[in-house]
Parts: sequence; C-alpha cells; structure tokens
Amino acid sequence: MGNSDETKGKVITCKAAVVWGPGQPISIEEVQVHPPQKMEVRMKVLYTSICHTDLSAWKGENEAQQMYPRILGHEAAGIVESVGEGVLDMREGDNVVPIFNGECGDCSYCKSDKTNLCKRFRVNPMKAVMVNDWKTRFWTRDGQKPIYHFLNTSTFVEYTVLDSACVVKIDANAPLRKMSLLSCGVSTGIGAAWNTANVQEGSSVAIFGLGAVGLAVAEGARLRGASQIIGIDINSEKFIKGKTVGINHFINPNDLPNEKGQKAVHEIIQEMTKGGVDYSFECSGNLEVLREAFLSTHDGWGLTVVLGIHPTPRMLPLHPMELFDGRRIVGSVFGDFKGKTQLPHFALECMHGVVNLDGFISHELPFAEINEAFQLLADGKALRCLLHL
Amino acid sequence: MGNSDETKGKVITCKAAVVWGPGQPISIEEVQVHPPQKMEVRMKVLYTSICHTDLSAWKGENEAQQMYPRILGHEAAGIVESVGEGVLDMREGDNVVPIFNGECGDCSYCKSDKTNLCKRFRVNPMKAVMVNDWKTRFWTRDGQKPIYHFLNTSTFVEYTVLDSACVVKIDANAPLRKMSLLSCGVSTGIGAAWNTANVQEGSSVAIFGLGAVGLAVAEGARLRGASQIIGIDINSEKFIKGKTVGINHFINPNDLPNEKGQKAVHEIIQEMTKGGVDYSFECSGNLEVLREAFLSTHDGWGLTVVLGIHPTPRMLPLHPMELFDGRRIVGSVFGDFKGKTQLPHFALECMHGVVNLDGFISHELPFAEINEAFQLLADGKALRCLLHL
Repeated sequence: MGNSDETKGKVITCKAAVVWGPGQPISIEEVQVHPPQKMEVRMKVLYTSICHTDLSAWKGENEAQQMYPRILGHEAAGIVESVGEGVLDMREGDNVVPIFNGECGDCSYCKSDKTNLCKRFRVNPMKAVMVNDWKTRFWTRDGQKPIYHFLNTSTFVEYTVLDSACVVKIDANAPLRKMSLLSCGVSTGIGAAWNTANVQEGSSVAIFGLGAVGLAVAEGARLRGASQIIGIDINSEKFIKGKTVGINHFINPNDLPNEKGQKAVHEIIQEMTKGGVDYSFECSGNLEVLREAFLSTHDGWGLTVVLGIHPTPRMLPLHPMELFDGRRIVGSVFGDFKGKTQLPHFALECMHGVVNLDGFISHELPFAEINEAFQLLADGKALRCLLHL
Repeated sequence: MGNSDETKGKVITCKAAVVWGPGQPISIEEVQVHPPQKMEVRMKVLYTSICHTDLSAWKGENEAQQMYPRILGHEAAGIVESVGEGVLDMREGDNVVPIFNGECGDCSYCKSDKTNLCKRFRVNPMKAVMVNDWKTRFWTRDGQKPIYHFLNTSTFVEYTVLDSACVVKIDANAPLRKMSLLSCGVSTGIGAAWNTANVQEGSSVAIFGLGAVGLAVAEGARLRGASQIIGIDINSEKFIKGKTVGINHFINPNDLPNEKGQKAVHEIIQEMTKGGVDYSFECSGNLEVLREAFLSTHDGWGLTVVLGIHPTPRMLPLHPMELFDGRRIVGSVFGDFKGKTQLPHFALECMHGVVNLDGFISHELPFAEINEAFQLLADGKALRCLLHL
C-alpha cells in the first residue's frame, strides 16, 4: 500500500478506528476508502493525535451531532497518496497536515483579511459527508454501509479523503511526527495569542484551563514577551508543565480558602496585576470560568479570548452594561490562522525551534491502542497522545 | 453677574432647575453655587440640552441612583467664570463644554491609547458630590440643604462647578449655541462610527434606534463614505430626519407582516446586504434589539457597537458559541473620544461644517420651560431641545 501507483484511483482497504455508538469502545477494523473526487485529496495518515473535541464527539455529548458509524480525529500529519481532478497545489508524496477549518481561497471570507472562516469549509460538526456528492468516501469492508466523516478531516484511519481546502502542504523536510500538533491544539493556542489577541511585550496574561490549548497560549504569550503569565486550573499537576511554557503564577481555585467572603479568582488576579490582566484566555468551556476570565482583565482595554467549547444552553453571563467598562470578548477559531496561507510558514517556525512542539506530546502509542489513548485524555493524564499508524 | 470680578471667589445665587423627587415637575428656583475648589472650574452655562440619560434620571428609573434634591443635565456650552487652584489649561472667559466622561490626563487609563475611560472621572451615575471634599457646591438658597451633582456635570443651572478634568476648552470663536451638542449625543454617535467602529468607505451599516445618538452615528458613517446605511426604528417619522444624515434604507419592525413565519429584522438585513452589515449600532437600550443588531452583522467580521443604556437585570442574550461565528460586540462610551485631548479638534471640524450640528437641534426654548422640553423628549418629538439660559 505504500506505493501510490498501486492504489491511485482504486478503493483502498485499510485499518480505521470506527465509532459505532456514543461512548462505545472504538473498533479497529478494516474499511474501504474510495478515491478522491474533484478537488479532493487522499492522504496517508502517519501520525494522529486526540483532542477534546474528539473525546466529546465519541461520547456523543451533543445529541444532534450523533452520527454512526463514524471515523473521528482531526489532528494528523502524513503524505498525499493521490489527488482528485483540479488539485494543483499538492501532489503525491507531499507532506501534509489536515485542517478542520478549511480555506478555499475563493470565497469572500477567504479574500477578507478580517477572518479565517471560509464560507464553504468552516467548522461544522453536523457535516458528515463530502460536499462533491453529499456521500462518504468511507465504507464498511463489505461495501454495504457508509461510514461518516468528521470535522472536515477524519484522521483515525490509515487513509483519509479530504477536500483540498482542508489540506495544507508543508515543507518536504518537516518532521511529520510533531506536525500533527499543527492541525489543531498548538495552532489554536499559539494563534490565539499571536493573531487574535496580538499579545504585546511586557503585558500580562491569564489562561483559564491548562490543557494543550491553554499551554499553547502560554507558549505563544511567552514568545511574545509577556511578563506575567498566570495559569488557572483545578489540577495542580498542570503547573509542572505550565512552568516550561512560561507560566509564572498558578492559581488552583480549589485550593483557595472556602470560607464566607472568599475572594473570587478574578479578584486575586486584579490584586496580583494591579487592576487586571491585559489578556485572558478561556480554554475550559465552562461559563462560570468564562465570567471569571472576563472580569480578570483590566477595565478600559482588557480582552478575553474564548477558545473553549461551551456545550450549554445558557447564554453569556455578562451584563450589557459591563461592556461599557471597556472590556472586550471575542471568539477565536483555529487561532485565527488562515490555514493554507499561513500554516506552511508556521510549520517552518516550528521546525526552526521557535515553538517547542515536543513539549506537547506527553504520550505515544500504536494506533491499535486508541482506546487507551482516549482514556488518558479523559482522565486528564495526557496533553497529546500521539498515535503511530 | 456677567463680570467675573464681581463673583470670583464668592457664592453666586442664581437660577437652577432642581429635581426634588422621581418624576416630579422640575422646579426652577434660586440656589447657591459655591466657588470652585482645587482643580475645579465654575462655568457660566449659556446653553444646555436634554438627553435620555437626564430623562431616565429624572424619572428615577434606577432606584439606587435616586438622590434628591439634584441638578441634572450634562450637555451644555458656556464660558469659564472662574477657576480653582491648580487649573492651568483654562481661564476666565474661555469657551468651554462640560464632559461627563472626564480626562484627568495623569492616570494609567488616560495615558493609554486604548481607552477613553479615566480612572477618576469616568461615568458614575452614583457620584453626586465633588471629589475634593465629598461635598456639593450647590446649596438651597437658604444655604441649609445640599443639592446633589449629576454625572460629573449638572448643567441645568446658570452656574455650575465641575472638575477641570470634565471641562474642555474650545476655540474662542466657536458658536456656543451649537457646541452644547458636543457634550454628549453628537460626539457619542459620531465617535462610535469614527473611533470605536472605524467605519470604512464603501461599507454597510445598520443603526437600531434613531434618536440623536443614532442619527449622529449615521452622520458619522455617511462622512466616512459608508455606501449602505440602514436605519431601524418603530417610529417611521424618524426616517425624514434620517434621510438628511445619509440613511438610505429604513425598516420599521412594526410595519413588517405580523404572521407566522415572519422574518426577523436581522433576516431582512442579511438579505438586503448579502450576508449582513459590516457594522451595527445598538442605540435603543433594548436587549431584543441588541440581539437583532448582533445577528444583522456579517459573520466573520461584523462588529456590533452598543451605545444604548440597558436598565435590565437580564444578561446579554448571546450564546458563547455564537462568538465563534466571528461576530464581535463592544461597548462605546462617549464615542471613544478622549474629551480634553480630542474634542477641541472635533469642535473645529464642526465649526468648519464637516458635521452639520444644526440638524440635531429640533427645538429651542427658554430655560424656564425645561418641563416642556423634557416632555418633548419623552414623547419622542424632540431630537435635541436647546435651552437658552
């Protein structure tokens, strides 16, 4: 299967991790992967890693998004096996990473310098088929049952098919093992600090939730020269890793004295920073935390960047009049990186050691042990567990 | 009383419009106005106008802010009668306008180019005394009872005392009659378009609520070359005035067919603008309207600027995940103008006809008829009623 000449234009039968129902053990089984159609790319996945979005999709936390059988996964790196009609920017053998937040390059959004959301290939957890024919490229081994796609990507499989708008060609010498992290977590965090917030030298930063994304925010803030980087997490073990990416203060809300009149986290931060941080980042997906993040910024100019996924029916716990205190709040998708335009350069920066990607890989396992890898993330033990295919 | 030599350093007895209780007829009566203390200015008020904030304070809509007797008013123009110790940037006879959102020039906020909120003299509806001694400069004619200040200004009086941080010296040839509008409504609206949103040429704008502030936003957007300016108001008469400041589409939500499946205002705007406006401005103070304003912007880059005062216990009706559509929302106080630094230049621009201030003065009355003027605004008949003192 390694030589594209043997597989090009043909159905490939290969191993995939298939989810058959919410929270059910993931089944490693053989599936059929059809050839890429117009403007599609078939990619040989060499490395893939697991993000909380995969975990939540596996659990089926959002009922409307439950579609089975499905191949999850959106962080990966690999090489192009073959390309469909019209794909001119990639060819067989190219090093690539998939992006869940695509860039078609042609729509009014892609042509605007104000957004990295593409009209056609933005994040859509409901999308489960390819746009060319509204069908899947994955089928069960017997060819009888379609297997759904996930988040424009589906990387828990030896070969996947993606829209070319969702595949980024990176340097031929890029170390693919690490490059998997660029597909989501690290790009999202670093980009939120660099692009969305545009963190300035000497500024102060608070990061709520120290998973891979939160730690990547810290790394981004550190690289920009932020002088005060405060990490907040209910798991004190996160501080060990946090220190290596520049976090120089740590607050565990559970360690605060639980008495009447106890100070809220934002009050402690206001005191530590004489009025609040310049930037706060919400990476927990919890609305109470979001409010603390908002109030922990300096009035007048504080900016809160929301990165966490909030699966709640509740609205923002912010009063309209609070906007007049000059605090701002914005969302950030994929770190405001335009994937195809900007990721190749970011990959070079990572290759040159600007960002220490190794620090984000806490575990490595063979693909067959994907269920163990899910458990590591669910237990809060793994930052990123890299699966080798 | 016209000659400062006669009054300087002395208590002045003059006419004021005093509010003695929520919604009670405003009483024109003689009061004592004490001399300015350190860093204070006593100003002879020549013109004053009424804004919705005065109306709402008169009605006592916010119980916590009920303090009587009180002198309301924050839009005015006049001349300096005398200055207190330490005031170096103004002298007797200078043309001035008061600003409710002061600028001390010394605090970290004033020194930051990211905010126009001053640490000491920002908007505070609870503040009712001067900061020097936490006492009032206004007393009843018999000197027995203090009369409270309002919004750093209190302009419904022949002489008022203000912190120098809340007084802006303008050109000696400025036509004071019109300059009253710079104290609040016109600066707030124009500044929201110019400073907060930074409206670009050829862009599209939706303005919800066409009072003086909303119309000033339109004027600001028109002057910036916005090509599509949509006005939304439940009073269709506002469109007549709206046309003169550049509004070229008008929507009255009450005129929409009231059937099942009726389109919301934001859906109509999305269709009209092929995806939404670049900027929307909420000038109504209503949360349902705020949500329509938010959704009427283009995803990816739309910006909603909140100008309306929202006297509601309810939180923002926005879901956290909606932030990931790339729509942003910010508040704007005093149009993000730094009053003392930027208003003198803005006043010159108005003098040179850049902004047509006359269009915002719909009525003029003698000071004694202030109750009639309040009624005109309450009935939605007046944009700005200018009172002559």
